[in-house]
Amino acid sequence: MIELALVGIGTGHPDHITRQGERALNAADLILIPRKGEGKADLADVRLAICSAVVTTGTRIAFFDMPVREGAESDYAGAVERWHDAIAEAWLAAIAVHLPGGGRLALLVWGDPSLYDSTLRIAERLARRTALRTSVVPGITALQALTAAHAIPLNAINSPVTVTTGRRLETGGWPAGADTVAVLLDGRCAFRGLETAGVSIWWGAYLGLPQQLLRHGPLADVAGPIARLRDSARVAHGWIMDTYLLRRSPPAP
Amino acid sequence: MIELALVGIGTGHPDHITRQGERALNAADLILIPRKGEGKADLADVRLAICSAVVTTGTRIAFFDMPVREGAESDYAGAVERWHDAIAEAWLAAIAVHLPGGGRLALLVWGDPSLYDSTLRIAERLARRTALRTSVVPGITALQALTAAHAIPLNAINSPVTVTTGRRLETGGWPAGADTVAVLLDGRCAFRGLETAGVSIWWGAYLGLPQQLLRHGPLADVAGPIARLRDSARVAHGWIMDTYLLRRSPPAP
Repeated sequence: MIELALVGIGTGHPDHITRQGERALNAADLILIPRKGEGKADLADVRLAICSAVVTTGTRIAFFDMPVREGAESDYAGAVERWHDAIAEAWLAAIAVHLPGGGRLALLVWGDPSLYDSTLRIAERLARRTALRTSVVPGITALQALTAAHAIPLNAINSPVTVTTGRRLETGGWPAGADTVAVLLDGRCAFRGLETAGVSIWWGAYLGLPQQLLRHGPLADVAGPIARLRDSARVAHGWIMDTYLLRRSPPAP
Repeated sequence: MIELALVGIGTGHPDHITRQGERALNAADLILIPRKGEGKADLADVRLAICSAVVTTGTRIAFFDMPVREGAESDYAGAVERWHDAIAEAWLAAIAVHLPGGGRLALLVWGDPSLYDSTLRIAERLARRTALRTSVVPGITALQALTAAHAIPLNAINSPVTVTTGRRLETGGWPAGADTVAVLLDGRCAFRGLETAGVSIWWGAYLGLPQQLLRHGPLADVAGPIARLRDSARVAHGWIMDTYLLRRSPPAP
């Protein structure tokens, strides 16, 4: 039997982790950390730094090589399915080596396991292959790190918020009925394709880390500067993770 | 100068707090805890329990009486504005007594200060009256505690999520364009007014606390049982906080 704890770690700062997360990492027999290969943004170092800050017990740490997702734009859903299958295989192989008799396994999940993260779906695949009990420890999402860094509320009073992806914003435009839109997983600055009238943006990258970047202002004024800053920061650091909030003023009555 | 730290504490379990939150509470000169008066769900005991679990320094704790919001349904926005004004006055009065020379003040915010919480808006009022620097420490929201307890993702792959309130769901119905809807602040079981075809619900109350309740299933089957369970739990405990996720299957092609 594998007892799998998916531990949300926030956005990279060890102080984002909750007491519950600390306890789960310390209670684990094994922590598995993914490696994407040289020159890639695998964040293995960030995960190791978190472990070294919070793990005080004999928990072992092992690495596994993260499979690469096909770039197929024509069959995005299929490519994601096959990628998740391959990751489940990689977990199984690592478990066979490092935890052959079963035990408590922990995985550090960027942000929170519930939000635009595939770890729960990969765990479902694992459960079809081996005896598995999965528990989830929530973590601070990039959205919360963003609003905290800007010291702003996510929602307007009694108003809804649409949380979506850069891909959806790019293909579908501004979501119907929304005044506040939070965007994750945008590698292509989809905000540049929007009507800018009345729209403000609050943007952040590397939230919680020493290299944190924050910008906000009218979208018309800051969309270009943010896109250029994003490009240069990605080159400088070798990787970037960013997120943003868009708010549209209601039209004048 | 007041340095105000708004510390997200999650949904009541001391282990929901982050290391950053622990540090902020321990670094404060004063923690202010609201009291709503006898027989009310003021959760002052829960906040005190969190302080007693995580504060190891000489941080002082003081209470203030929380103003009551008018029940005016006809002018909800105005009633909220006046309530926030009154809370800012109550903070100022407590600061004058307990932190007259300025210093570091911390407030424990249920969930996360960004999500359907008024503390940031009250802090803005305070900043107009006194020298103030506000920082935000993110915390686990009820939505994250809900999805963690059910071990489910919030979003479908590459799909948006609409986060809204019970009040909005009751007056506006199912949000346009949404397949996943997360609902907070619903004191009247607005899910009972929805079309149930193809809709599933994941519901949770007292998330993270010993009395935690979880239910899920097709909305048609469990809406009534959840509403009855909610009523009896509120009577038994004197208060309830709950939240839920609704997911609608796409119509058959």
